[in-house]
Amino acid sequence: MITKSSDLQTERRENMRGGAGTVQIAHAAAKGALPPGLRLHAKLTLPPGAGIGEHAHENETELFYVLQGQGEMLDGGVWAPLFPGDATSTGGGQSHALRNTGEADFVVMATIVLQ
Amino acid sequence: MITKSSDLQTERRENMRGGAGTVQIAHAAAKGALPPGLRLHAKLTLPPGAGIGEHAHENETELFYVLQGQGEMLDGGVWAPLFPGDATSTGGGQSHALRNTGEADFVVMATIVLQ
Repeated sequence: MITKSSDLQTERRENMRGGAGTVQIAHAAAKGALPPGLRLHAKLTLPPGAGIGEHAHENETELFYVLQGQGEMLDGGVWAPLFPGDATSTGGGQSHALRNTGEADFVVMATIVLQ
Repeated sequence: MITKSSDLQTERRENMRGGAGTVQIAHAAAKGALPPGLRLHAKLTLPPGAGIGEHAHENETELFYVLQGQGEMLDGGVWAPLFPGDATSTGGGQSHALRNTGEADFVVMATIVLQ
């Protein structure tokens, strides 16, 4: 099944999880067509200055894969830099936060896998 | 957990599933750190002229999300065009194939979710 980009849901989330600015979410699966093992599969765009506040993942694992730009993830209480091609995994009750530290969009694929 | 791009596995597959040319696979999770519900989570780069031959997905669903370039997916026996932002889902015994039809790299995120 192919779903054209114009038929995929997009969202704008202000102060997502308490973070700064507005995060753009471009869903990468048609509504209702996400396989049962996933809760989210989307491209997240954080404009300069934007972020997602700290939150925990219980009974699921969130994977980020950096596509463009530069940012940082709060991981184990420490902000660590992220560049294109870097990957992250947060699950088992761990928490994380994400922010753009560059002057261009910071873009990641976000995939939440249920446990 | 953060895995830097230099620590992520990359592969080059010639004539993948019988397709033309060489496909580059950049894994988006550390080896052994893929959540149990996933079999693959990777960025696939198909250079101009390259493709992945037709194959079926049983007991799993493969999602493609187009990041760059232009290509086509064989879907239900018909080649259909794909552009950045388009999404595909192939599972339940369905088969598909993928090919670059443009003059630049055709890049997709590929995520295989076990059923």
